[in-house]
Amino acid sequence: MRGMGTSPLTPAVAPSELARRYQGVRAQTCSLVAGLGAEDCQLQSMPDASPTKWHLAHVTWFFETFVLERFEAGFSAFDPAFRVLFNSYYTALGARHPRAQRGLIGRPTLAQVMDYRASVDDRLLALLQRAPETELALLIELGLQHEQQHQELILTDIKHALSCNPTSPAYRAGWPLATVAPVPLHWVDFEGGLVQVGHPGAGAGFAFDNESPRHRVYLEPYRLASRLSTHDEWAAFIADGGYDDPRLWLSAGWDWVQANRIAAPLYWQRSSDRSQDWHTFTLHGLVPVDPHTPVVHVSYFEADAYARWAGARLASEFEWEHAAERWPLPDPGRANFMERGALHPMPPALVQPQGLMQLFGDAWEWTRSSYAPYPGFSAWDGAVGEYTAKFMCNQYVLRGGSCATPASHIRSSYRNFFPTDARWQFSGVRLARDAD
Amino acid sequence: MRGMGTSPLTPAVAPSELARRYQGVRAQTCSLVAGLGAEDCQLQSMPDASPTKWHLAHVTWFFETFVLERFEAGFSAFDPAFRVLFNSYYTALGARHPRAQRGLIGRPTLAQVMDYRASVDDRLLALLQRAPETELALLIELGLQHEQQHQELILTDIKHALSCNPTSPAYRAGWPLATVAPVPLHWVDFEGGLVQVGHPGAGAGFAFDNESPRHRVYLEPYRLASRLSTHDEWAAFIADGGYDDPRLWLSAGWDWVQANRIAAPLYWQRSSDRSQDWHTFTLHGLVPVDPHTPVVHVSYFEADAYARWAGARLASEFEWEHAAERWPLPDPGRANFMERGALHPMPPALVQPQGLMQLFGDAWEWTRSSYAPYPGFSAWDGAVGEYTAKFMCNQYVLRGGSCATPASHIRSSYRNFFPTDARWQFSGVRLARDAD
Amino acid sequence: MRGMGTSPLTPAVAPSELARRYQGVRAQTCSLVAGLGAEDCQLQSMPDASPTKWHLAHVTWFFETFVLERFEAGFSAFDPAFRVLFNSYYTALGARHPRAQRGLIGRPTLAQVMDYRASVDDRLLALLQRAPETELALLIELGLQHEQQHQELILTDIKHALSCNPTSPAYRAGWPLATVAPVPLHWVDFEGGLVQVGHPGAGAGFAFDNESPRHRVYLEPYRLASRLSTHDEWAAFIADGGYDDPRLWLSAGWDWVQANRIAAPLYWQRSSDRSQDWHTFTLHGLVPVDPHTPVVHVSYFEADAYARWAGARLASEFEWEHAAERWPLPDPGRANFMERGALHPMPPALVQPQGLMQLFGDAWEWTRSSYAPYPGFSAWDGAVGEYTAKFMCNQYVLRGGSCATPASHIRSSYRNFFPTDARWQFSGVRLARDAD
Amino acid sequence: MRGMGTSPLTPAVAPSELARRYQGVRAQTCSLVAGLGAEDCQLQSMPDASPTKWHLAHVTWFFETFVLERFEAGFSAFDPAFRVLFNSYYTALGARHPRAQRGLIGRPTLAQVMDYRASVDDRLLALLQRAPETELALLIELGLQHEQQHQELILTDIKHALSCNPTSPAYRAGWPLATVAPVPLHWVDFEGGLVQVGHPGAGAGFAFDNESPRHRVYLEPYRLASRLSTHDEWAAFIADGGYDDPRLWLSAGWDWVQANRIAAPLYWQRSSDRSQDWHTFTLHGLVPVDPHTPVVHVSYFEADAYARWAGARLASEFEWEHAAERWPLPDPGRANFMERGALHPMPPALVQPQGLMQLFGDAWEWTRSSYAPYPGFSAWDGAVGEYTAKFMCNQYVLRGGSCATPASHIRSSYRNFFPTDARWQFSGVRLARDAD
Repeated sequence: MRGMGTSPLTPAVAPSELARRYQGVRAQTCSLVAGLGAEDCQLQSMPDASPTKWHLAHVTWFFETFVLERFEAGFSAFDPAFRVLFNSYYTALGARHPRAQRGLIGRPTLAQVMDYRASVDDRLLALLQRAPETELALLIELGLQHEQQHQELILTDIKHALSCNPTSPAYRAGWPLATVAPVPLHWVDFEGGLVQVGHPGAGAGFAFDNESPRHRVYLEPYRLASRLSTHDEWAAFIADGGYDDPRLWLSAGWDWVQANRIAAPLYWQRSSDRSQDWHTFTLHGLVPVDPHTPVVHVSYFEADAYARWAGARLASEFEWEHAAERWPLPDPGRANFMERGALHPMPPALVQPQGLMQLFGDAWEWTRSSYAPYPGFSAWDGAVGEYTAKFMCNQYVLRGGSCATPASHIRSSYRNFFPTDARWQFSGVRLARDAD
Repeated sequence: MRGMGTSPLTPAVAPSELARRYQGVRAQTCSLVAGLGAEDCQLQSMPDASPTKWHLAHVTWFFETFVLERFEAGFSAFDPAFRVLFNSYYTALGARHPRAQRGLIGRPTLAQVMDYRASVDDRLLALLQRAPETELALLIELGLQHEQQHQELILTDIKHALSCNPTSPAYRAGWPLATVAPVPLHWVDFEGGLVQVGHPGAGAGFAFDNESPRHRVYLEPYRLASRLSTHDEWAAFIADGGYDDPRLWLSAGWDWVQANRIAAPLYWQRSSDRSQDWHTFTLHGLVPVDPHTPVVHVSYFEADAYARWAGARLASEFEWEHAAERWPLPDPGRANFMERGALHPMPPALVQPQGLMQLFGDAWEWTRSSYAPYPGFSAWDGAVGEYTAKFMCNQYVLRGGSCATPASHIRSSYRNFFPTDARWQFSGVRLARDAD
Repeated sequence: MRGMGTSPLTPAVAPSELARRYQGVRAQTCSLVAGLGAEDCQLQSMPDASPTKWHLAHVTWFFETFVLERFEAGFSAFDPAFRVLFNSYYTALGARHPRAQRGLIGRPTLAQVMDYRASVDDRLLALLQRAPETELALLIELGLQHEQQHQELILTDIKHALSCNPTSPAYRAGWPLATVAPVPLHWVDFEGGLVQVGHPGAGAGFAFDNESPRHRVYLEPYRLASRLSTHDEWAAFIADGGYDDPRLWLSAGWDWVQANRIAAPLYWQRSSDRSQDWHTFTLHGLVPVDPHTPVVHVSYFEADAYARWAGARLASEFEWEHAAERWPLPDPGRANFMERGALHPMPPALVQPQGLMQLFGDAWEWTRSSYAPYPGFSAWDGAVGEYTAKFMCNQYVLRGGSCATPASHIRSSYRNFFPTDARWQFSGVRLARDAD
Repeated sequence: MRGMGTSPLTPAVAPSELARRYQGVRAQTCSLVAGLGAEDCQLQSMPDASPTKWHLAHVTWFFETFVLERFEAGFSAFDPAFRVLFNSYYTALGARHPRAQRGLIGRPTLAQVMDYRASVDDRLLALLQRAPETELALLIELGLQHEQQHQELILTDIKHALSCNPTSPAYRAGWPLATVAPVPLHWVDFEGGLVQVGHPGAGAGFAFDNESPRHRVYLEPYRLASRLSTHDEWAAFIADGGYDDPRLWLSAGWDWVQANRIAAPLYWQRSSDRSQDWHTFTLHGLVPVDPHTPVVHVSYFEADAYARWAGARLASEFEWEHAAERWPLPDPGRANFMERGALHPMPPALVQPQGLMQLFGDAWEWTRSSYAPYPGFSAWDGAVGEYTAKFMCNQYVLRGGSCATPASHIRSSYRNFFPTDARWQFSGVRLARDAD
């Protein structure tokens, strides 16, 4: 691997704190799987989702391959087979085990993968004993950001896997919601104009290459809904025939609805075909849908159709980002991120009668923006250049993080992206409109 | 159907000339099918392509449904079954015959469809005897623009159908190319900045709703290649292993290459697996690939990978449009449009040593822009609102028209769009770069 | 091609009559397509069915390839491309055009195919001027039998193609049924024992290789229903929930029912999901189901489930053949074969209160016998050895011919065969039982 | 469930020994999975194969549902959810978890399934304290035979699952083969005639319903190969282009070869496309192919093509059974069954220069007989009637058991059956011929 190039890949913490940060993120991952057995960790319910065990090994492989292999004197692989088994999609690194068959890898066992984690941790921390050079620090930071992404995927993937079990087993006991009062939706106006978007660059903390360079875009005046759309608003969409009216849908969305008989968000079910008594599968088991919390697990197609039904549209990713710079995250500790432990969307922690709520956490917000390179974009050099750039096609950008996102992982310039039919992430909707 | 709304749908000609224009476009369609038999006109070689007979009937159905049904006194359908058989995708108009089964409609026969055309022509021309009101004129103009789109599709679809016949039959005899000399490629610079794009609106001629409103975008400085990429440049890409190197491809593109064993543009073939002696199927039969004419029948995936291989990128649709307003079509009669009769890409008719060549005609140029609504976009009212808006997802914009596009149909704000794997259109590549 | 081997391939007529017979069969084919246009003859509605035009050419190709190429002095192909285009499945003869793409061959046109027929007819009749040697006569007889098979396929394939047109066009005007009175079903007993089955061999007329050798089988005592099962009996099966009860079905049959949402025989439709008012598409257009005529267009899966529901079973092919030798075809002119022109199943022409009716004609009768080689079977030598033998797997035998079968084509040893889900043939049911 | 009907379902042992036999079979199952971890037991590599854990639970569910639920006083389900989770295909017992998703059931865990086994064992043995009535004994015997079938499936399914791991992990260490000397193949003649086949009925030990009634069939004189076909004979078939010559294959077989790019038996691999240096994956890991042991893991299609290439054919199931009654299993302890522990085909334990070897054990022998009901067949009453009858379609019979079959499970009338493309069983070939 050559250098990382000129992209503003900046460590989130000072080198002196890197070891502690490393240990913290790695331990956080282990805490997420503490309640899962070897069988749970083996499950792969669809090609898009991976077994927990695979996630545990893959993030470790990332450190072994991109850090130890380059910086450790006398490097020797923990197990040469892991190079193929746990490579996700880096074609520059050679063969990979097929994605859809990750669930067929019974060996190494979960215990062996935990040994692998321990071994790589020991060796990497030894490397950090000496003051790390910049590129080493950068790669470790990238590895930690990478592991945080997989923390979220561990949660969304095990949720999908458990949902395939007709007994609806819970990932974690303890339902996080008390009685929830409705919060009215209002509109917040933005003037637009020629604005700056993208990550500010060196000195402003870590960012992926796809957030750069910072550049100008022209925005017409627009409005954003003050909060995320809720379960009861979605139920009204269903009751009004939203899933039955092709005029609300993109053509490809309507084909998708028909071919897959979509009639509600993922994980929703009802006792009978005619019942409006909706339940939903959560990481805490099967529960009645709470009307006043944000709807999640909707596809881009559904988000777009819902917005049209509501007389609105989705925001562009730049409208969202411009607004987020105006309304920055006031108090990360109060937002509904992974660390809060709810693992389910919640009502706004802080009701702001004039401003934007829930911009961060709770649910990733679908935007109308196709995932594309910024003007002047260049991918990182070497194999890590495959991290984001090659997916810039037929995917749409989501912003703001969810209830499964680590708090330290998100920022206003962060660009998540998924295909238009993806639903297993905690993806929701904030409405937008042109200014009157 | 309600009114057409406020979009700048403007007739291309004065009402007094509309009848003549109507007759001209309709006659042009018939001339395209003059050499085809009833069997040829029945062929449907894939769901994306339609039988010639279906095109002939569908464009007529468009006039019958959107014009006669509304404006003709005592309207009575030519055949009520046609309402279903020849509706393409207008859900607001009720049931449609499945797209993939258009080739299974043996009756009405070709002769009966020609009778249908004659009947609608007679009735529509009768309607035009009196000075047409504006909306009638607008709808007729829309119908004519629609028919021009299908003229191009008649050509691309019959090309695909004939290519499925192992005897490689020609649509039209007479090979259009003489000896072709190479034209060197140079780069043309643009400063960018805050520029206007989109159709200027009322008074500037016809436009589809997706070209409006005209609006501001900010462009960084950029460069465009002076001409389209050629067959020999593409052959060099192949010879250099372009189809075998995943690092050149979008992830979805590489999956597509692998799954479909793509190794050359559509219609290319060689005598043996190892030969570099390429032939290509054309509307004039199977011919050797000419090295110095523009490559066509490449997908977005291929165009993107080729550009990366060439150390360049595709232009955005706004970079293209801004350039096209700087270098407008000098002399439509010299450009290689359908009327020229070549029906195959040609060398530049007018070599401009300093400027842009082949912006219009020859080949649709893939852009890196996902097909999306403009700020403030609203679709036309009523069923015609399904014309363009519902396809704004997972498609990419192409600009400039091709050798199968009618000359009077194209303009600098015109947005064509196809999915990333579509290859049967005359789609090619113009390289772009960031300014140094 | 080498000789035909030792199988009892016997001409049906004396050599002196061969020319007249040839002309008769060939003219019969043309009469079947007299009412079809070039568009109809181009239709291929599924891979299993072929365009009429392809049938017309393929049977001609058979004579050209197996007869003229071998016996004509100075043979020269009518068109070398036809060798590939119109070869069905003879791998020994080289490349074939893919079966599913026969509908994509617009050229040669129908008129050109008729010219091809005329040319081959002329040359073959010239060959018959001199007294034909035995093998020539045998191959011509095989070609005529082959053409008769395709006569039936022309009818079943065009029926399927026309059924895909929502306007339900008729192949032939004139509904053949008058008021039909019910004929009660009774059981006819057979003692079984060690019996002979299979074609008697040389001297007994033409037979395919799969009917030989004649051999012994042991049959337990059994009973056969006196007539075919009727439409109203099938409607009772539907009304009783026959298509909803997995216990009636083979496991593979139930999977097929579920996957394809099968709820009635092919071509049946009703005005609404709850209506019992059945109509069916016929070669004469869409008509109400007549209750007292034989049900047709059922798959093996359906026939088997229906028999189980009726407390019976299907006969083995040897039970059927043994019975047919006991109750031979009394008067071919009265049976409902193709020549009768009904092209639809009819009530028994001759009501036999004690015996078997409708053994021949009306509907092919599914048997429980998997299509397999007889003891001592050997396929014909050379390419014609691919005629039947390679299909002896996962298909079930049908006996007796249908309303679309030429009368001179059928016999008691004749074995037709189709996969278990095939429904577009005129396939029906005769119930059988073990003796009490 | 009603009674078992009149079929000759006979306990294999006296009631007094039933408890001991029950414990023995159940313990045998546990010994098969002793070396597997929770992750291994979770794997499902294809819809046809099930996770080890599912097998362990399903066979227990069989006893709970068919025995305890009926005979235990105050029956209460161990876990009501298991009724759905572990029902395989008994539609009469209500809903089932989809077959292809058995690998997605992480909970119950392996430990919980072992608890389930222990609980059912305790309760069933308590039931056996009192002298069991006949039907109870019959159902327990059926449950044990059923569990023995799943013992074999545990082995074949885990073999397939482990083969999907690129590290080729072994199920069991210790390669069973020493140097193997070739055993020449000779032909053994049988006169045939009117013979009896099928299980003799009450008093002759246990049999499934599909083996009855015993009945007469007429056999022409025939010959059988003295031993199974070997790996080196198969390698000669490959080297001779066997997989490339369509004339050797059934039409459906050739389609299968082409569509799946089949070029060798399942589990065979070579270092490069041109190498003839074959290795094969076994339950002991990846090993070089031994030339003189029986070939296994071939489909019916392959067995049929190989036989044709060898100038022979497959035997009918009745030819096989008649021979097996002439050459009964001399000494089960010497045959290569599961208990021998080789878990791989072996050379003949007892070389018989004049007679048939390897009729039992080593490899299931494909026959040319489609799996069908015997004359007079009736399925068992009630839900157990779904055990065999509903699969009598598009499958072919295999005879004799394999190296993964329990010795006490096999007999000469035993009919195994699989679809024509199944390869993951230990299925091999014995050649047959018509008598000269």
